Amino acid sequence: MTCIVTVVTLAAVAIVGSCFADDYDAGLPIAALVLARGGSKGIPLKNIVEIGPNQTLLGRTLDTIQKSDVFASVWVSTDHEQIAAEATRHGATVFARSATHAQDHSTSLEATREFLEAHPEIENFALVQCTSPFLRPHYLVEAVSRILLNVEFQIDYKPPCAFSVVRSYKLRWRMNPSSLRLEAINFDPTARPRRQDWPGELVETGMFYFTNRQLIMEMNSFQSDRCAIVEVEELDALEIDDTKDLALARLLVELE
Amino acid sequence: MTCIVTVVTLAAVAIVGSCFADDYDAGLPIAALVLARGGSKGIPLKNIVEIGPNQTLLGRTLDTIQKSDVFASVWVSTDHEQIAAEATRHGATVFARSATHAQDHSTSLEATREFLEAHPEIENFALVQCTSPFLRPHYLVEAVSRILLNVEFQIDYKPPCAFSVVRSYKLRWRMNPSSLRLEAINFDPTARPRRQDWPGELVETGMFYFTNRQLIMEMNSFQSDRCAIVEVEELDALEIDDTKDLALARLLVELE
Repeated sequence: MTCIVTVVTLAAVAIVGSCFADDYDAGLPIAALVLARGGSKGIPLKNIVEIGPNQTLLGRTLDTIQKSDVFASVWVSTDHEQIAAEATRHGATVFARSATHAQDHSTSLEATREFLEAHPEIENFALVQCTSPFLRPHYLVEAVSRILLNVEFQIDYKPPCAFSVVRSYKLRWRMNPSSLRLEAINFDPTARPRRQDWPGELVETGMFYFTNRQLIMEMNSFQSDRCAIVEVEELDALEIDDTKDLALARLLVELE
Repeated sequence: MTCIVTVVTLAAVAIVGSCFADDYDAGLPIAALVLARGGSKGIPLKNIVEIGPNQTLLGRTLDTIQKSDVFASVWVSTDHEQIAAEATRHGATVFARSATHAQDHSTSLEATREFLEAHPEIENFALVQCTSPFLRPHYLVEAVSRILLNVEFQIDYKPPCAFSVVRSYKLRWRMNPSSLRLEAINFDPTARPRRQDWPGELVETGMFYFTNRQLIMEMNSFQSDRCAIVEVEELDALEIDDTKDLALARLLVELE
C-alpha cells in the first residue's frame, strides 16, 4: 500500500519504517463499525428486536464489542432514530447513514465506503454484524492477535484482514442441470471421507470482518487471500435472517 | 439390475416386465431400517436418551416412521437389550446385530449389509437415522413420491434412491496448504453472489437414505448419481453428535 499521510499522525513510533504492502497497520487503532439501517426486510427494525430480557441485537453486539477491549472507537451507521438512540445508549458513536446507502439493494461495501469517506482518519476497522448474536469477546481478541501477532502461520507478513468461519465436514452435491444427475462436489462418493480423514472446509459466517481502508477503497473487498481466519463454534455462527432464526436465538440466549 | 427371484413372490403384477436397471422396484414394499448400537461414543446410549418428556431419540424416530405410513415393515438393528426393548415398545422388529458390526469403527454400510444378508426378502428400504430428531413424516412421503412417481424431473427413469439434503448458500474457503493463502471454493470473491444469484448447493444431511439391495450389495453405496433428493428445512437438519446438539434439540422439541 501507499503510506498515507494519516499514518504519521496516528501511528505509534513502532510502525515507522514498517509500512509493508497490505500489512495491517499494527500501530494504528482499530475502529468497530456496525451497519444497522432501519428498513430491514423480513423482521421489521431487526437490529433492535429483543433477543433477551432488556437486550436488543444491536445492544448485545455493542456490549460484546466493548467487553473485547480491542477497539479504539465504536461506530454505528444508521438512518433510523430509534437505532441511533440504542447505539448511543450502548456507548457507540452514531454515523448518520444517507438514505442513498440504506436501501434494500444497498450493499455493506457501499455503506462502509460512505463511512470511510466521511472518516479519513480511520485506517483499520472491523465490520461487526449484529445479526450474529453469538459473537464472543474472545473471537474479537483472537482476530486481533492473528492480524497483529501472526504467531500461528508460517508466513512472512501480517494478514491485512481476518474474518469468522465455521469448520464444516459436510458432504455436498449438485444437480447437474443438463444431465440431471447428482455430482459430488467435495468428496469421492466411492470413498466417503470420515471427519478425521480431511481438514473440512471453512464456511464463512458473517459475524465479523477485520479489514482496512485500502482493501475497501482500492480492492472493493473486505477480504483478500492473505486474510487470517477465526474459527467460531457452530452454534455461535447462527445468523438472524428470519423469525425462525430469531426464535432459536432467543432460546439459546436463555440457555446462557 | 438382475431381476431376482424374490420379485416374483413380492411384487405386485404392476411391475412385471418393468424391471429396468437401477429402478426402484415400484411394486415392492419398502422397509425402514434404523441402526442403533449400544456402544455410542460421546453420548452414552445416545439412541435412547430423552429428547422430550417420555420420548427417546429412537422412540421419536420410530413414531415418525409409523406416522408416514409409507413402510411395510420397520426394523431396528441393535446389539443392546434396552434399545431392543425401546424398539419393540414402538412397534419395530428387532434385528440382532452381531458384535462384529457394532464396533466404533463399524460403518453403516457394513451393518446394513449384515441386515440385508439375513433378510433376502427385502429389496427396497430406507436407512433412517434417529440422530436426526426433526425427521417429519412428510419428508418420508416426499422421498417415496420422488422415487415412485418421478413427477418433478424430466428424466426417463425412476430414481433408484433418494436422500435428504439442505440447500445452502454459504460461501466456502480453503487454506491452500502450500501457499498458506485463502482460496474461495464456490464463488468469485470479486463478485460475491447474493442468494438469488445462484441455486446454492445441496448439503447432505444424514436424516434418511432410501436405497435398494443392488446399490448396497453390488455398488457398496447408499447412493448413485441417479438419486432423487428431498430438501429439508435447515433447522430440521440438526444432527445429534454431542451434548450441545442434544441440548439444542431438546429446546427445539419444547418449541413444537
